[in-house]
Parts: sequence; structure tokens; C-alpha cells
Amino acid sequence: MGLELRRAIVQAPMAGGPSTPELVAAVSEAGGLGFLAAGYKSPAAVREEIRAVRAVTGQRFGVNVFAPGPPGDAEAVRRYASELRGEAERWGVDLGEPRADDDAWAAKVALVAEERVPVVSFTFGLPHPDMVAALHAVDVTVQVTVTTPEEALAARDIGADALVVQGIEAGGHRGGFRDDDGGGEYGLLTLLRLVARAVDLPLVAAGGIMDGPSVAAVLVAGAEAAQLGTAFLRCPEAGTSPAHRRALTAYQETALTRAFSGRRARGLVNRFLTEHTATAPAAYPQVHHLTTPLRAAARQAGDPDGLNLWAGQGHPLVEALPAGELVRRLAEDAQAALTRGSA
Amino acid sequence: MGLELRRAIVQAPMAGGPSTPELVAAVSEAGGLGFLAAGYKSPAAVREEIRAVRAVTGQRFGVNVFAPGPPGDAEAVRRYASELRGEAERWGVDLGEPRADDDAWAAKVALVAEERVPVVSFTFGLPHPDMVAALHAVDVTVQVTVTTPEEALAARDIGADALVVQGIEAGGHRGGFRDDDGGGEYGLLTLLRLVARAVDLPLVAAGGIMDGPSVAAVLVAGAEAAQLGTAFLRCPEAGTSPAHRRALTAYQETALTRAFSGRRARGLVNRFLTEHTATAPAAYPQVHHLTTPLRAAARQAGDPDGLNLWAGQGHPLVEALPAGELVRRLAEDAQAALTRGSA
Repeated sequence: MGLELRRAIVQAPMAGGPSTPELVAAVSEAGGLGFLAAGYKSPAAVREEIRAVRAVTGQRFGVNVFAPGPPGDAEAVRRYASELRGEAERWGVDLGEPRADDDAWAAKVALVAEERVPVVSFTFGLPHPDMVAALHAVDVTVQVTVTTPEEALAARDIGADALVVQGIEAGGHRGGFRDDDGGGEYGLLTLLRLVARAVDLPLVAAGGIMDGPSVAAVLVAGAEAAQLGTAFLRCPEAGTSPAHRRALTAYQETALTRAFSGRRARGLVNRFLTEHTATAPAAYPQVHHLTTPLRAAARQAGDPDGLNLWAGQGHPLVEALPAGELVRRLAEDAQAALTRGSA
Repeated sequence: MGLELRRAIVQAPMAGGPSTPELVAAVSEAGGLGFLAAGYKSPAAVREEIRAVRAVTGQRFGVNVFAPGPPGDAEAVRRYASELRGEAERWGVDLGEPRADDDAWAAKVALVAEERVPVVSFTFGLPHPDMVAALHAVDVTVQVTVTTPEEALAARDIGADALVVQGIEAGGHRGGFRDDDGGGEYGLLTLLRLVARAVDLPLVAAGGIMDGPSVAAVLVAGAEAAQLGTAFLRCPEAGTSPAHRRALTAYQETALTRAFSGRRARGLVNRFLTEHTATAPAAYPQVHHLTTPLRAAARQAGDPDGLNLWAGQGHPLVEALPAGELVRRLAEDAQAALTRGSA
């Protein structure tokens, strides 16, 4: 039961640890589509991860790449760094160097093409047309993450093969092209319908999907697949830190914040988020680098109030299951919901 | 085709004009469930509307009642009134008296019980237990609008028969119990799953639903019905003002604002919303009464930039159809989506 539906289950790329090669391989081996997260990693580390997946499974998988945007205002970053001095003193560490890099994205795209990874998805912006051409030349499927109908049209126009349609419910970073407070706050179901009317491309629905009935719902609403991140955070194969795992059952509310990275992302509401969300500037990736030592120290100390606890709105629905079992259960429960719905 | 599904189509109560007896009767006559909006109206006017519906159809329909909350801070209302002086001068009118009334809700509940309207739904809060008992005594079904899992539990505990689960996509007022900026910002699909796990009650899904595939999606996700407001705004039977109708095709973006009523509501982004959202206080219904003459003047002048243009996020998907035809089309398209989904 639900065999076909497993192909509609995508494990979202979760940069910063959770998307281990073990998780990706387990998802793909179970019939879903696992995704490595190239963000923050060196190209060499990404290559190692690709090879680690291939050592375990011959199934399809994907790699996600962050597209760089304009850096934030340096003066705003300096002000925020002053505010964070107390956090640094708390751990006895120095703040990170707030550099504005491009995450070596061109090297990563070249690597993905060279390794012929079956699927690459982009977050935070559009790939250059020559990147799309290079990927298409070696039969790599190109997906672009969009949060508005306008972004969907732009992604279609540069030749994207499919779109990851991300609703406001999603955990982790908002994946759209811009990071302002207005617009782009669409709920998943509405966004899916708006994008389906705007472009004729396969759509992958993302944002707050945690269980089989939600998977079934987005398929009925026109998606070809459902992408779930938070749902996989409690899998034993995931690289989720122990503090993050504990917080997923102890904390309830989520909110959007720029406090950790300088770009809006949804996480469990904890002390750091509460104290710094109002003042954190839109300055990615500078703020990400600035807070790296703070987050590392809190993670090591097992303090859930000092690090980013990315989670989607539906996180209380998640159970701790091995990834392959989770893929099977999602597909079975989705099939059951579809059967009930059509009766 | 879709005959059964028409019963799953609910026309949302839209206070302030759109939910005319003609609209309600046409929806119910077509097999859906129409809703009158008692908010802002006198009990006598509500009684007339109930009788007007019954003069046209013997089918089931509902009435929505606003539950009162604590009034906003009087000093904040005075400050906002000063800000709005320019708007009043623009139209040559006086601002309204910012009174804090309870919308005569007890009289309206008594009226609904006396008239034995089949369904009553509450917005902005819980009915008193004695109201629920009085309604149940005459077989009136009691629905409560909720925007969080916590509100769902509270509504269950006072004996609600069903819940209207409203996602952040919805046009018009946020229907939950509180009006603060944190929490309660759930996307519909995620909220539906969270509430379905929390309470064992029939759920009516609301927020951004505009077409058949969205109706099908919420049914698959566990709802018994889909409630649509914006989708009916362009029906000829709706009391939508000409300026509002024009704006629905001319304006694109929506946002949440307290500028018009003192309580968060989603409307098309226009001049008044842009200029006053940042400063409008949480003070309902005082701000509603304060701006009534401004909105009336703008409406009469046909100026879409001076009045509240409530609309859900999916409004560009809406076509102008007679209400009965819209109900039939939604049901047919939902059925087709369910058939496709289960294939």
C-alpha cells in the first residue's frame, strides 16, 4: 500500500546538520527523495557527502544550494554585534567574523553537475542561466524554491524544471528571493493554487507538512510531491543536535526571526529568539557568521535557549521514527486519506 | 456530479455588507450552507434578514455572532483619532464615536434561538455556557471560530458542536479569541491537522480557499466542510460595494491590519492600510466605530483607497459567478480533484 506515493515524499534539505548522508540515503532507499544541504559547507565536504550517500544507495537523491543575495548593511551588523556581546561573554567566546560571502555556490553547482546528482534545488534566489544550462547538459533536474506567484514566474522564465512552493508554515529559512517583511507570507495551500494557475510546471509543496493526510491534501491541491523537513528532524539518522531534539517535544510555539542568521527563518520560540528578534537586522550571511560561535557553544552545552531551533508550525505532530519507516508510514497514511476523501 | 460535495461548501459570514439574504439563500438553495453575518447589525435587522432568507428558501442556513472582548486602551484610541483627523477632513465628515459596546450579542443569540436558525457560529471568542445550553435546547448547532489548537480545546470544553478552523490566509477579521501579534498565525493546512489531533469534533476549514482543488484538499486533510468568503464577494447576490469589487481585480497584495477596526483583519493593500497600519491600536470595536464615517464616505465616493477591502490571500483565483453556479462548480471541481488524487 502506498508504494507509488513514496515517490511523492521529499525529505527537505536542512542545512546546519540535520541532513546527514545517512538520512538522505535512508529516505531514498525507502522510495522517497532525500536531499543533502550544501549550504554553509565547503565544496569538498559536499563532495564527500554525495559519495557517502552513493556508498549506501543507488537511488535518486538531491542536493540543495543557497543562491547568494545582496549583503546587509555593515553598520546594522555592527550595532547587532554590540547587542550580542553579552551572549558572547555568557559562553566565553568571541563573536564570529561577519563576512559577506557567496557560500561558494558556483563551485557547488559545478560539483553537482560533475557528480551528476539527479536533482539540485536552489534556495534564496535564482541560478544563473548558464548554471541551468550546465546542469541541463548533464541531465540534472533544476528546482527553485519560491514563496510568491511572482517568484514562480521568474523561476519558470530561467528554465527551472520544477518549483518548491514554500508556505509560511515552513520551519527554517524562508526560501524566497527577498527578505523583507511585506508580501511573501502566503499559507501553503493558497500559494500552491496561485502558483498552479500561474505556471505549468511540476510543484513540490513545502511548509508545515508533517503527516500523511497533509501529504494527501497537497497532492489533491495539485502538487506532484510533498517536501517535509521538520518531520525528519527526530529520525535517528538525522544530525539534529540533542538540545534541538529535546526542544521539539518541550517547546510549542514557533516564530519567524532574523536573530540567528540575519534572514527570516521559523524556529521554536526560545530565549535567544525572544531577546533578539526585534533588533536583528536583515543581513545575511553576516549575522549567520556572527552568531556561529554562540550557537556552537550553546549546542555543545546542550542549552536549547541559545541556539536556532528550526521547526515548522506542525512540529507537535512529529513522532520519532527511523527515516525509512517514516517514509512508508507517510505514504500509507496519505493513501488512506485519499481513499477516504474519494469515498 | 459533486452533489454530495455541495453540502461541504459553506459561504462564510461576511459582516459589513457582503452577506445579504439573497446570497445566503442562493448558496443554501444550491446545496451549500449560507451564513448571515449578525455583526454590526441591530437585532431587529438580523431578524428581518433571517425572515428574508426564509422567504426564498426552506434550506438550512446559519447566522454568525461576534463575541465581545475587553475594550482597547482609551488613550491609544484618542491618539489614533488625532492621526485620523486628516482623513475626516478629506471627506468633510466627523469621526465616529469610539464606543466600546458588546454588539448586542446576547439579544442576537436569544433571537437565533427563538428563530431556530439551524446553525450559529461565533467569532472573536466563546459563547457563555448558558448561551450554548439555550441554543442546544432548541437544536441549534453551535460552531466556534478558532485560530490555534488551544482555542480549539477551549471551544470543545464549553460544548461547541463543530469548529471553524481559520488559517492566516483568510480575508477579513482574524476570528480567534485574542488580538495580539504573537501566535495564532497558523497556515490553514497545518492548523487543521493540529486541531484534528487535539479534538474529536467536526471541523470546517476556512482561510484562502477559493477553488475546487482547495476544497478537496481540506476534506482530505480531515475537514468536513470548507468555508469560503472571498470566493463569494464577486457574486451578483453579494452586497460587496462597487469600489471593493473593482479593487478585487485591480489590487494584488493583501496584508493584516488594525487600521480600519482596531482588530487584525486581512485586506487588499490600499492607501489607508499603508498609511495607518503601523500606528493603529488594538482597540476593537472603538476603532471600528471611529472609522465608520470615513469608510462610508469612501464607499459612497467609490474610492477604493479609503475603505476596508477585505480579501483572502487567494483572491486572484476568484471569478464573478452567480452564487448557485459557484457552489455547483466548486463541488464539481473538488470532486474532479479527489478523483484525480485517488487515481
